[in-house]
Amino acid sequence: MSFDEVMRLAQQRGFFFKSAESYPNAPAGFLDYGPLGVALRGRLIELWRRTVVKRDGMLEIDGSQILPKAVFEASGHLASFTDPFVRCAKCGSVFRPDKLVEEKSGKAVPEKLGDADYDSLMEKSGVKCLKCGSKLSGTSRFNMMFRVGIGPSNEEAYLRPETCQSIFVDFPLLFKTQRVKLPIGIAQVGRSFRNEIAPRQGLIRLRELNQAEVEVFFNPKRLDAPRFEWAQHESLFFRRPDGTDTRMSIADAIAKGFVPNRLVGYYLVLMAKFYEAAGILPDNLRFRILTEEDRAFYSKAAFDLEVKLSVGWLELVACNYRGDYDLGGHAKVSGTDFKVDDAGEKVLPHVFELSMGVDRSVYSVMESSMTGEGDRRAMALKPYLAPVQTCVFPLVNKDGLQDVAMAVYDDLRERLDVFYDESGSIGRRYARADEAGVPFCVTLDYDTLKDKTVTLRSRDTRQQERVAVASLAEKLVALTSYPRISTKASTA
Amino acid sequence: MSFDEVMRLAQQRGFFFKSAESYPNAPAGFLDYGPLGVALRGRLIELWRRTVVKRDGMLEIDGSQILPKAVFEASGHLASFTDPFVRCAKCGSVFRPDKLVEEKSGKAVPEKLGDADYDSLMEKSGVKCLKCGSKLSGTSRFNMMFRVGIGPSNEEAYLRPETCQSIFVDFPLLFKTQRVKLPIGIAQVGRSFRNEIAPRQGLIRLRELNQAEVEVFFNPKRLDAPRFEWAQHESLFFRRPDGTDTRMSIADAIAKGFVPNRLVGYYLVLMAKFYEAAGILPDNLRFRILTEEDRAFYSKAAFDLEVKLSVGWLELVACNYRGDYDLGGHAKVSGTDFKVDDAGEKVLPHVFELSMGVDRSVYSVMESSMTGEGDRRAMALKPYLAPVQTCVFPLVNKDGLQDVAMAVYDDLRERLDVFYDESGSIGRRYARADEAGVPFCVTLDYDTLKDKTVTLRSRDTRQQERVAVASLAEKLVALTSYPRISTKASTA
Repeated sequence: MSFDEVMRLAQQRGFFFKSAESYPNAPAGFLDYGPLGVALRGRLIELWRRTVVKRDGMLEIDGSQILPKAVFEASGHLASFTDPFVRCAKCGSVFRPDKLVEEKSGKAVPEKLGDADYDSLMEKSGVKCLKCGSKLSGTSRFNMMFRVGIGPSNEEAYLRPETCQSIFVDFPLLFKTQRVKLPIGIAQVGRSFRNEIAPRQGLIRLRELNQAEVEVFFNPKRLDAPRFEWAQHESLFFRRPDGTDTRMSIADAIAKGFVPNRLVGYYLVLMAKFYEAAGILPDNLRFRILTEEDRAFYSKAAFDLEVKLSVGWLELVACNYRGDYDLGGHAKVSGTDFKVDDAGEKVLPHVFELSMGVDRSVYSVMESSMTGEGDRRAMALKPYLAPVQTCVFPLVNKDGLQDVAMAVYDDLRERLDVFYDESGSIGRRYARADEAGVPFCVTLDYDTLKDKTVTLRSRDTRQQERVAVASLAEKLVALTSYPRISTKASTA
Repeated sequence: MSFDEVMRLAQQRGFFFKSAESYPNAPAGFLDYGPLGVALRGRLIELWRRTVVKRDGMLEIDGSQILPKAVFEASGHLASFTDPFVRCAKCGSVFRPDKLVEEKSGKAVPEKLGDADYDSLMEKSGVKCLKCGSKLSGTSRFNMMFRVGIGPSNEEAYLRPETCQSIFVDFPLLFKTQRVKLPIGIAQVGRSFRNEIAPRQGLIRLRELNQAEVEVFFNPKRLDAPRFEWAQHESLFFRRPDGTDTRMSIADAIAKGFVPNRLVGYYLVLMAKFYEAAGILPDNLRFRILTEEDRAFYSKAAFDLEVKLSVGWLELVACNYRGDYDLGGHAKVSGTDFKVDDAGEKVLPHVFELSMGVDRSVYSVMESSMTGEGDRRAMALKPYLAPVQTCVFPLVNKDGLQDVAMAVYDDLRERLDVFYDESGSIGRRYARADEAGVPFCVTLDYDTLKDKTVTLRSRDTRQQERVAVASLAEKLVALTSYPRISTKASTA
């Protein structure tokens, strides 16, 4: 299915849709999650907690979204978190120069150019205002943080552009109060805000987005992860800087210099395991190795975890070895000591970051799960990710079948997320359930009244079996439980 | 325990603490949740989902936090969501006139006064600037919404001051796509933002807060709740407008005119059940009946659910029968039809709101759970709310006990939230666990090496029993599971 078809399905079934849609001219880049989307996203985050956060013994925090100006002086966002833009001298429309040139020339414009570079590219390709055809201004810079003013004195503060700054700022307090040792991962799920100049519709580039980030703090002299033994033989799919793809074990990737050390390798494996458990095929998950010029100046190594979709390869997770850039910056601006004790040595920890885009991940899981052709399409979500785990259908709405069906429904929904549907043919009800990703359907018929059994139908196999009402809940709970993720050092 | 003591414990154990604390002069009114706080809040919200949202078959959404100006024109916030303030003519300090007068006179100032009323009260009580003693300006108004500008054109938008506006704005789309019937509850958990003039420290008045809101949409001609039969005999504790307290069944409260109808009565019971399941004693939960002059002009009936704490009675949930004010306002400003079909009739639904303050609720559950005296204090959280469900202690760190303890820890944490602690005496470790609300501790000793049993110790009874390692996980899972909340119409 194409991106547009999945997005249409998402809207029709209430997974997610444009925010404030009832209002004409509501701004782009904002999204509301409906009931199925809230549930799918919640389960995906729970899977991430189980496979990444809890498996590794990380801490999870939730910091405020508004942070004072000084935090973003330290992080560098105040000075550098900018996008280039140009303005039409006549109608005032605003555009990104790189996007204008790319659309006109059909060629990619490199990232991180200077304003003069954009101006000369625009000159060369002869771009004009897309709305009225008039001349455009020279390139200016727009800071993508949303500014807010606190209190009547309008104290300068910003909505965070990434969740991780709270993790850095709180690190000394957390290290002390949580009685942990290096290496320690600290995780956070939440909203971030980026005032994009031209957000696309849908989930790819939002002004308000959900992130799930992990910052692993470690002593740069000790580059081993506690459970590396388990990870070393796992193979991952890399895109080399020369544009070729290769599958390598982590041990090999380290030996060949593609992965800088065992700690980084371990965490790349953790992220891959998460997406595989979410139903994305290993061959559709790729770690793009960033070259030095693609990376930020402080970055020592970086990988984009990408997923293969109908729109091409899409970045889901930025994996970035940030050195001591973050803790050093906050130590300097705040005047607080960010060094901690590691086996008797005072160290300013280095950071390896796993920054996941949640909205994109939700979309990717949905698109990657779509099966079937034409009218008979199904969203083959893993049962533990399905927003609705089972539907309950009375075959007909008479002869007391409804009452029995409602009793089964009430019983099941004590332990599962269940939807009751009594309208339309059974075939139509199965089709609706398949499309919403429901893995199992329970149908009650006249035999149910006689022998207290129901038909249990699987979305993926389309097989039907007769199950006793008495054992139905137990069976469905087992079929829809999260996989057990071993926490042992040496096993998966 | 006093408010200050609980807050200190919260900071010391990393439940929550002031945001950006590493920074001098970080603004007040912002909070970060640490690992124990994230877990406690998450479990409390899960309990709310089970006892309120899922029990009642509500929908849950998650809308964007930034909404366009038009939404707040419709909601009335742009015109009326203001607080009075005065400014010192000399030093520029800002104060709330009502708070200044209250502090000076020791008497409560009524809510919703006009600016001239505040000015004359200040004149009468002779208040001056608290900082420099100079004369203060007359009362002005400060809109408590945080304004943000979208894109380079700086399009006017606001951070939502309450989560519910998305629920109202999305109502027509949700009603259509989710195939539901009136009455239907729509719930949302998330951040809201209120630019308080003088926020207090702690969780009582935050500039960035967490809410869990429910809006129940219903046909005003049909005021019955589907499961009212179950609720009618439940008794609740009311504070009458005359200042006297009474305990009444819902059926009685309706008959006597304290509760306007069966639908409202049913939802009041749902909220009380939630807090009782969270460990707050029924006698410490009170529904304060608001008089017509306490309520907003559009409100047809309102109750504040309050909890008794060391600081007095604190409002946790605003329960408000809002009529068609919200949907009518959005219909008018957006030009969208907000009427829906109810059994063949086109109706603009009325709304009953249950607006819960999550941060205050987390605090209240903590304070209400504190037991013990002096050094031996424990947080007797319900086991299903405890951030850490069990601790694992090796008696000594030698003779292989550590390895066995680590294996037990790894095994348990596949299914539970577990903390491993090997430092200090066993008594000290129990004390630390009690204070963090851990309901069970597992200690491994030399007998463990012989007979594969451990000591399981209960926080609340201080009883210890020997349990086989093989049955430990199963037993602890059963001991820490959420209570089953029946979904049946006629039972609790």
